[in-house]
Amino acid sequence: MIDNESEYSDLLSQINSPVDLRQLPICDLPKLAQDIRHKIIDVVSKTGGHLGSSLGVVELTIALHYVFNTPDDKLIFDVGHQCYTHKLLTGRRDRFDKLRQEGGLSGFTKRSESDFDPFGAGHSSTSVSAAVGMAAGRDLTGRKNNVICVIGDGSMSAGMAFEALNNAGDTNRRMIVILNDNDMSIAQPVGALSHHLSQILSSKKYMSLRQTALEMSERLPQFVKKMALKVEHHAKGLVTGGTLFEELGLYYVGPIDGHSFDQLIPILTNVRDAPEECPILIHVVTQKGKGYAPAEQKPSKYHGVSKFDVTTGEFVPKTNKNPTFTQTFSDTLVSMAAQDSTIAAITAAMPSGTGLDAFSQMYNSRFFDVGIAEQHAVTFAAGLACEGVKPFVALYSSFLQRAYDQVLHDVALQNLPVRFCIDRAGFVGDDGATHHGVFDLAMLCPIPNMIVMAPSDQQELQKMLLTMQEINDHPSAVRYPRGSGECVELANNVEPLEVGKGRVLREGKKVAVVSLGTRLKACLDAADLVKNHKNFEPTVVDARFAKPFDKDLIRQLVKKHDGLVFVEEGVTGGFGTMVMNWMTNEGLSDGVKLRCLTVPDVFVEQATAERQYELAGLDAKHISQVIESIAGKK
Amino acid sequence: MIDNESEYSDLLSQINSPVDLRQLPICDLPKLAQDIRHKIIDVVSKTGGHLGSSLGVVELTIALHYVFNTPDDKLIFDVGHQCYTHKLLTGRRDRFDKLRQEGGLSGFTKRSESDFDPFGAGHSSTSVSAAVGMAAGRDLTGRKNNVICVIGDGSMSAGMAFEALNNAGDTNRRMIVILNDNDMSIAQPVGALSHHLSQILSSKKYMSLRQTALEMSERLPQFVKKMALKVEHHAKGLVTGGTLFEELGLYYVGPIDGHSFDQLIPILTNVRDAPEECPILIHVVTQKGKGYAPAEQKPSKYHGVSKFDVTTGEFVPKTNKNPTFTQTFSDTLVSMAAQDSTIAAITAAMPSGTGLDAFSQMYNSRFFDVGIAEQHAVTFAAGLACEGVKPFVALYSSFLQRAYDQVLHDVALQNLPVRFCIDRAGFVGDDGATHHGVFDLAMLCPIPNMIVMAPSDQQELQKMLLTMQEINDHPSAVRYPRGSGECVELANNVEPLEVGKGRVLREGKKVAVVSLGTRLKACLDAADLVKNHKNFEPTVVDARFAKPFDKDLIRQLVKKHDGLVFVEEGVTGGFGTMVMNWMTNEGLSDGVKLRCLTVPDVFVEQATAERQYELAGLDAKHISQVIESIAGKK
Repeated sequence: MIDNESEYSDLLSQINSPVDLRQLPICDLPKLAQDIRHKIIDVVSKTGGHLGSSLGVVELTIALHYVFNTPDDKLIFDVGHQCYTHKLLTGRRDRFDKLRQEGGLSGFTKRSESDFDPFGAGHSSTSVSAAVGMAAGRDLTGRKNNVICVIGDGSMSAGMAFEALNNAGDTNRRMIVILNDNDMSIAQPVGALSHHLSQILSSKKYMSLRQTALEMSERLPQFVKKMALKVEHHAKGLVTGGTLFEELGLYYVGPIDGHSFDQLIPILTNVRDAPEECPILIHVVTQKGKGYAPAEQKPSKYHGVSKFDVTTGEFVPKTNKNPTFTQTFSDTLVSMAAQDSTIAAITAAMPSGTGLDAFSQMYNSRFFDVGIAEQHAVTFAAGLACEGVKPFVALYSSFLQRAYDQVLHDVALQNLPVRFCIDRAGFVGDDGATHHGVFDLAMLCPIPNMIVMAPSDQQELQKMLLTMQEINDHPSAVRYPRGSGECVELANNVEPLEVGKGRVLREGKKVAVVSLGTRLKACLDAADLVKNHKNFEPTVVDARFAKPFDKDLIRQLVKKHDGLVFVEEGVTGGFGTMVMNWMTNEGLSDGVKLRCLTVPDVFVEQATAERQYELAGLDAKHISQVIESIAGKK
Repeated sequence: MIDNESEYSDLLSQINSPVDLRQLPICDLPKLAQDIRHKIIDVVSKTGGHLGSSLGVVELTIALHYVFNTPDDKLIFDVGHQCYTHKLLTGRRDRFDKLRQEGGLSGFTKRSESDFDPFGAGHSSTSVSAAVGMAAGRDLTGRKNNVICVIGDGSMSAGMAFEALNNAGDTNRRMIVILNDNDMSIAQPVGALSHHLSQILSSKKYMSLRQTALEMSERLPQFVKKMALKVEHHAKGLVTGGTLFEELGLYYVGPIDGHSFDQLIPILTNVRDAPEECPILIHVVTQKGKGYAPAEQKPSKYHGVSKFDVTTGEFVPKTNKNPTFTQTFSDTLVSMAAQDSTIAAITAAMPSGTGLDAFSQMYNSRFFDVGIAEQHAVTFAAGLACEGVKPFVALYSSFLQRAYDQVLHDVALQNLPVRFCIDRAGFVGDDGATHHGVFDLAMLCPIPNMIVMAPSDQQELQKMLLTMQEINDHPSAVRYPRGSGECVELANNVEPLEVGKGRVLREGKKVAVVSLGTRLKACLDAADLVKNHKNFEPTVVDARFAKPFDKDLIRQLVKKHDGLVFVEEGVTGGFGTMVMNWMTNEGLSDGVKLRCLTVPDVFVEQATAERQYELAGLDAKHISQVIESIAGKK
């Protein structure tokens, strides 16, 4: 499956740091690239990971370490998911087999992992800001190193990247932005910027070496002159035209073939040696999945992969056949939209990950992919809600963090009925600390007007989505985890829930466990453990609603039990804390023992999600111990 | 002081809605503008408010209501602080005297206040997103109304506005963006976009009527052709050059003199009647403070004003002569920076409001104003911290909400020593619900690695800033309110605090009140009330640190008291909840009564801050009642 398999060499095994790389003649670099592709495909087929993006930047990453003096020169990868070549070249080859596993390498760049990782990431579009900061820090401390960031065209659509370019273009600070243009982020490219890049590509040829050298010597001083003019308050200012990046004050170089060392090495060298003090943008064109045919053909499918067969490209079948929560959301929303033409769906560059691809195929005019732009996605949905549309915004929990102010100021403050469908809530497993969805409850519960739900299984998610459809006087949110729940199949007929009401699954005694979300299974198991061990059966409650929570039910539980244990898949500050705060002020806590099991106050590294819950003390065994510790001690 | 005072008429009193306005001949509009300026200056001189921005858009607002069919046509004001003319024209004239007062008109647009306010705001740069959403909603529901948003050049620097333009430019949806270019947001203009606008202005003349009519008829079809080309996958795509807005796919019209009805009325009419389906950007040039000489001369000073004398322009002297927290921050940071050359300061377009103007004058190379770009400000600071600089990021609490993900993912996850100086924490008074700084504790306390402080007075703030200077292994934050504290003057010699330690102000009995922040005074007063009323003196503690809180101290308090009352100036989910959650899991709550007084779960409207605290039950009287209710009931 891999191109030119016969050319496999053992060059990679000789590279223990970029110093070794720089000893190689340029003519050996394609062979090294081949080795690296072999290694990445081999390992990722066993560990899963971000395949396409890493295969796309093999040559670019080699060229950057070849030309620049890393780690003194700072090399920042946006999002960090394309960093596998970078890890292989910077002393982490021997640990690469443990990619994304407990105790192994992170799937992203990470400051604590290597001096070659000056800035960690997992969320997109932060690299230019970090680079502007590092360039300013370098200038303040009187050093001379280069600062380089590599950012994809998709990541450029986030407002944060624009803020950073707008700031960079206003300074005379030396820094290099590598625009890695593969004409797609994770999904199809969207947005005017993407069109703009296509226009550049269709109107310009790749730069030749001679051309580059000429342009660099001719245009750079001109550019500096332009900057000087700006400083003169535009005495002779002109609308210069050109690329959007030039309008923003960056010096534009490109486009360049990102798989050609003949272009990359001389042009990067020219830029490195150019003495001018200004921000430079190099437009590099790459292909996602380069060198692995299945990934070249279906880049979206091979962006982030589970284990697969290298020869066929086929994914190893899942062992759990239950529908995933994402699938449940997808199916339910599609069937709701069939009945209700006012339902619209919004995603921020994740139609496939959120399950909205099915909706987009069925109801394209009501589907909106706004690009990597969570802030805009939320306020755009608020605008839709003003006009009587029912917007369902599907985002990953971790990425919703980008839109905290928009949820609060644009949606909740105006009490607009925007529906938030929050996927990847709780621990996410091997993506690790940057991607956990453990903050959403603490984010959303303190916001007035919000209604917040979490299903214990997929049928509950169905009910909650129907409930949200009917909530037209408040914003509402439902948060659900990655993967499958306990239900074997979806229901055909479900009814909406009564807002703010929980349900008692087991009427027991002494202690009531109040679970929010999919830890319910662990709570039921814990109750079994207690029953076997201590000979009493605790009450088990599925709270369903984090906000408004079921006050009547809590009052009843307090009356009948010595203690209450709250369990949720999030940090302190969410459901349990809200209930306990209310209880204290009502005097309900005065005679009852309370315990609140949340995700601990640390960033949890990659491992399986199951293991992460165990480490967090949210497994059945620990829950049962907590129950036992307060039983009979009123 | 007001231009052409003799031309004062009573036209304004005849306008009860835009319908009345549209009956006037165009030649009367300048007189109406004059009336409106009189009214705004008169009222704002008594109430305080956003003067300069509202005076700058008098003609533009009149012209928009004159030409467009509001409220069916949706008119959205970005930030909302320039909406005074809009309120006067849309049936709120009689209530205008109660601007920004309890029970009166909001200082911003507000959906619940009028059908003419389709989207409320207080934070900047949301209007384009809302407009794209409303345009999409209109199209989905088969209506034909116009959607217009008015956004300043400063607001355009926020990434959110770029995200929205990038999305709008990718659609064939009819909407109108009015770029209100006054070459300054609140402070001096910064950023490459601002230079770009200056370049346009210096290279183009104002459009004449004839020119506009010609261009509209000639260029619109051409533009549509360009859009069509895009759809053909850029078969003949060209880099067209032109303004940045054209690169982003918007049709650009302008520049236009925003104080000339002769330009505004025909051009807006042309745009209204143009049949084409595409987003149009009209570049309007206005002057902040127009028509009031003091505000024209010092636009930054008269952006947001307290009460002033209309004749002289002088502000009414403050009654409280104590240094404000902002002043304390400003003075302390300047004196720290004199000793420590690694200190840098960052603001997002608020050098004056945050008190960083003094720093910028003394240490300009270490001062960074990145524009209205809180996301970039925070990650830029993270980049600085990577390079050994000590960044102090000064933001208003409410605006820090924009950077929640950057604080979490770029700073805290990497444990970078970025210092957050959070002004306007707690209730802010007359700016109302959009501006309260009541969410920061609930935002920051659940984030691992964060150190969070709140001073009870200005000297405590001095100590906390010194403490932050020494914290090089964690991010740290201090939050302090608008206005003055209890200290009459600043200290000359202060020492840093021990991290995580509170202080006992009064050793009492039965109940301990644990205060975080400036409610300490109310807690001491409450203790006095209890002493007089119930003949015992409660313990009063200043927590100082919300995180890490003082666990030893809490253990001691539990041993010696029947109950603990936590008091803070924020919503549930911050300091008190964090302590109580820990207490429950440690078993410390089992025998002690707990109460937690926080800001209630509603958005609190404008009033004085004192009154807002009273309504929230955070005044001395209510605190004393809570203390008494749990005393002696172990």
